[in-house]
Amino acid sequence: MPKLRVHNFSMSVDGYAAGPGQGLDTPLGLGGERLHDWVFETQHGRSMIGAEGGSTGVDDKFIAAGETGIGATVMGRNMFGPVRGGWGDSDWRGWWGPNPPYHHPVFVLTHHPHDPIEMDGGTTFDFVTEGIEAALERAYAAADGADVRLGGGASTVQQYLRAGLVDEMHLVIAPTLLGAGERVFDNLDPEVGGLQVVEIVSSPAVVHVRLARP
Amino acid sequence: MPKLRVHNFSMSVDGYAAGPGQGLDTPLGLGGERLHDWVFETQHGRSMIGAEGGSTGVDDKFIAAGETGIGATVMGRNMFGPVRGGWGDSDWRGWWGPNPPYHHPVFVLTHHPHDPIEMDGGTTFDFVTEGIEAALERAYAAADGADVRLGGGASTVQQYLRAGLVDEMHLVIAPTLLGAGERVFDNLDPEVGGLQVVEIVSSPAVVHVRLARP
Repeated sequence: MPKLRVHNFSMSVDGYAAGPGQGLDTPLGLGGERLHDWVFETQHGRSMIGAEGGSTGVDDKFIAAGETGIGATVMGRNMFGPVRGGWGDSDWRGWWGPNPPYHHPVFVLTHHPHDPIEMDGGTTFDFVTEGIEAALERAYAAADGADVRLGGGASTVQQYLRAGLVDEMHLVIAPTLLGAGERVFDNLDPEVGGLQVVEIVSSPAVVHVRLARP
Repeated sequence: MPKLRVHNFSMSVDGYAAGPGQGLDTPLGLGGERLHDWVFETQHGRSMIGAEGGSTGVDDKFIAAGETGIGATVMGRNMFGPVRGGWGDSDWRGWWGPNPPYHHPVFVLTHHPHDPIEMDGGTTFDFVTEGIEAALERAYAAADGADVRLGGGASTVQQYLRAGLVDEMHLVIAPTLLGAGERVFDNLDPEVGGLQVVEIVSSPAVVHVRLARP
């Protein structure tokens, strides 16, 4: 059975996936960028931004694992872009330039209809207004037997966790405190969507935690 | 300068220091005892309950570090015992038997006055109704130059964090999810009482995180 997988989901030691005061100029909130520093120390992370070099150890292997066996992606609208409310005449096409690093169908959750966007390199953005189950159903169909990756943000992942639809989650605890902000593990019940901790691995930079169904 | 130190403060991967549904028979809440399993695998942890054996690795060393240089303890009333509201004619003398493992003055925060209790082995329980600053002041005086240890529960530690009075905190992330319960890192601000992450060390059982002032 194909799975819904979350990868490289970074949070602070005190449990925040974004800092307080998220806005147009601070999409990750106050201090939130510290959660992702570790990514850009790795070879895979650096290649995403067109840079060379970077580490090839455990952090890099975890990032690489997030790319394998994935046929489609679901993400929240805030991960797609900073536009809020209706789309109006926005020509926003994502944060990632003309050739986004997906190369497969991406389904964006939104309350506001938007025409599909076709990008270079095989990435398409489809906008789903019918809710998280509908988006996942379309993603599984598009993935054609491969797994579906669930992107952020925290609110999107929390909704899929609450619905018990996440099969695997790779969580990263970054060595920082944010004090306030947006949590992923909140408004859940003691079953946490049926997930359990199956592995904890530390690198010099961060702690990797794998959650899965027992 | 003597310090206020927290040690062996266990929480789940999703940030709960106790599970949901805390009560007389479930002082740690649903699943909360899983947070402390690691303690009883160590030599120091086992000796606390009169058992022999146990590991002597990194987990044991962290527990031992919590005992050194401490001259007094401050704890919340729920860590002292299960009695709630007024003390009435309760003869509760703590969870730890006639010779508690403190061997120094212990200050218990409560809204309800209670006479001091003298135990065997040098432990005294003093009950402080004037608030967290007053309790800490009395503990520093009693410690006579040594550090003060801050016990639980989560609410007590959170109050001292919010007041910026905690100097060092040894946090333990246990490999479990609780889904709901009581958090220590909540209702704080981005400064988190002036603490930062200074060290993360994993053992096979848990992740140790040390917080301190930069």
